[in-house]
Amino acid sequence: MKKNYLLTPGPTPLPPEICEAMARPIIHHRTPQFQEILKEVSVGLKYVYQTTNDVFIISSSGTGAMEAAVTNLFSSGETVLVVQGGKFGERWTEIAKAYGINTEIINVEWGKAVNPEEIAKRLKADPGIKAVFTTLCETSTGVDNDIEKIAKVVRETSAVLVVDAISGLGAVDLKTDAWGVDVVVSGSQKGLMLPPGLGFISVSSRAWKLVEASKSPRYYLDLRKAKKAIDKNDTPFTSSITLIIALNESLKIIRSDGLENIFARHKKMADAVRASAKALGLELFAPTAASNAVTAVKVPAGIDGEKLVKTMRDTYGVTIAGGQDELKGKVFRIAHMGFIGEFDIITGLSCLEKVLAQMGYKFTLGVGIKAAEEVFLK
Amino acid sequence: MKKNYLLTPGPTPLPPEICEAMARPIIHHRTPQFQEILKEVSVGLKYVYQTTNDVFIISSSGTGAMEAAVTNLFSSGETVLVVQGGKFGERWTEIAKAYGINTEIINVEWGKAVNPEEIAKRLKADPGIKAVFTTLCETSTGVDNDIEKIAKVVRETSAVLVVDAISGLGAVDLKTDAWGVDVVVSGSQKGLMLPPGLGFISVSSRAWKLVEASKSPRYYLDLRKAKKAIDKNDTPFTSSITLIIALNESLKIIRSDGLENIFARHKKMADAVRASAKALGLELFAPTAASNAVTAVKVPAGIDGEKLVKTMRDTYGVTIAGGQDELKGKVFRIAHMGFIGEFDIITGLSCLEKVLAQMGYKFTLGVGIKAAEEVFLK
Repeated sequence: MKKNYLLTPGPTPLPPEICEAMARPIIHHRTPQFQEILKEVSVGLKYVYQTTNDVFIISSSGTGAMEAAVTNLFSSGETVLVVQGGKFGERWTEIAKAYGINTEIINVEWGKAVNPEEIAKRLKADPGIKAVFTTLCETSTGVDNDIEKIAKVVRETSAVLVVDAISGLGAVDLKTDAWGVDVVVSGSQKGLMLPPGLGFISVSSRAWKLVEASKSPRYYLDLRKAKKAIDKNDTPFTSSITLIIALNESLKIIRSDGLENIFARHKKMADAVRASAKALGLELFAPTAASNAVTAVKVPAGIDGEKLVKTMRDTYGVTIAGGQDELKGKVFRIAHMGFIGEFDIITGLSCLEKVLAQMGYKFTLGVGIKAAEEVFLK
Repeated sequence: MKKNYLLTPGPTPLPPEICEAMARPIIHHRTPQFQEILKEVSVGLKYVYQTTNDVFIISSSGTGAMEAAVTNLFSSGETVLVVQGGKFGERWTEIAKAYGINTEIINVEWGKAVNPEEIAKRLKADPGIKAVFTTLCETSTGVDNDIEKIAKVVRETSAVLVVDAISGLGAVDLKTDAWGVDVVVSGSQKGLMLPPGLGFISVSSRAWKLVEASKSPRYYLDLRKAKKAIDKNDTPFTSSITLIIALNESLKIIRSDGLENIFARHKKMADAVRASAKALGLELFAPTAASNAVTAVKVPAGIDGEKLVKTMRDTYGVTIAGGQDELKGKVFRIAHMGFIGEFDIITGLSCLEKVLAQMGYKFTLGVGIKAAEEVFLK
């Protein structure tokens, strides 16, 4: 017997209702039956996005939706400002460059959040900047940026704000309309508790003017086509029918739980993981801006970080994430996002204690679990 | 009780093994377990594609894979030749134009196959043409083009051949390597018996040189990234895990059945539908080039074609397809593709007889079914 437990920041585990929905016989997408589903999904997505803007669904990974944000709004030769504090911030730059868009970069030390004042300064220095690209939860470092404050400084200029909320949406608060975020990109396999394969993008009316002006070539990701379709409860190309039916189930769960409760649950799990790490004598990678969706912990001296993650997964069936790119082997990441509950966190921490002990790390067995339990008991 | 029967040319019905596979708990995509699946899938895709070329998997609808073919191989200002004999032939032109690629067009009357000699003539007239774009099965008209003959004439020139086999792959023979087809694009929701959401593209070594030369902007669909990943049993961006696990099941079924048997089954179903239509006094839309994947039948005079399709679906639960674009209301289309067997065809034809009779079309009840049964009995 090997039982598997998933504590990764995407994919996150799937609720049984969603597994069941995906096992149903398929239906055709150009039918009143599927249009009804798209209509319901649209209402649900607006709830999660906290917006009245259209939220377009793209059959792609989150990166496809990021590219849609870039190509639909900006043209070769224009300049955008990118906040780079991890692997996914860098992706904005890579996509923009692929389309000949000039990028000014704010390099944020990995593990820190961007200082909104730095954004204000850069926008003031170059009034030609058309947009600010940033990340809600930078999954690679476990950092949440302060989107509310960032939006505040961006709103004082003519630039639009584009947020990668692939990790974070439905886990961490993001008031798209109230804060004035023009474009929010997301994906299915994180807070929405679905398999990967759907990308999402909301566009404010202010940003829609850029969609009409953009000269970047695009077809599959063209939001003008998506707009024509969404007004008829349709998608411009064949929908990922099964995933959208599953999305409808996920949105029902989210609406029934309520966003405030969901955010509180995520915060509590994050607090528990942080308390546990501290009790175990481990250091958080992002102590000043730790995300409520995923916690990155520094691998302690003398421990092989890659082996730690591998042993937890291959020997004990507990899958957490290692570090990516420059953080490979230096951090491990425990997700507390989506369909993960407090006892899943206990499971993950218990397995962590076991493997740390086996690898010779010195600590009192159980102290990490105790610290987490104390948080959950509150 | 309302029982539903799906006879549409995408999505096609799902085998229970595939529904079951999608209901399983999800696994993480950067694990040895998922790499093993990608490795198996790669072997299976090469079998279905009849190629030794890499077959890349894209999380997108078929159109995303079509766009990948265009942007990865050609640059703005270059010229390609497009065979346009239906809605999906036109899509090649639209995508090419979106990227500033010049298109020469062979307009084929809807319902006819392209004459390969016409392609030869056009290539001879303009040696600057870099590629020929065509369609294996033009789903909108129910036409199969003769890819073997087309490939033969294209091979005599320096142009590459790009085939949209979204409909058709796994239903109709397509010998990618033996015939010399450079690029073959497909999708998951047709002959592969999966939900929509995956696109596929194979690239010959001859065509790969164009990938390296293309100046078209691309990121999510960049096959250079896909190539780096596939060599490590990986995908460049988060895989559509669930659909790929389902794909693995579908490819097992296909390999166990054998392509020759599958093509013969599709042909027999197509023959039965055609014989049935004839017995009912109906006219095929594409009598000279009828596809073995989907049959388009002309709506007889005095019958409301849209109402016919709607009644079959909404009253009796039998979903066939109507006409698209200029064929709206003028044809109906019965798919015999993917996980559809002879008794599903009987079901569809019986429902067709019932609704035609109710709508006042004159024929002897049962003659269509009898004709189909005669074909199946052979």
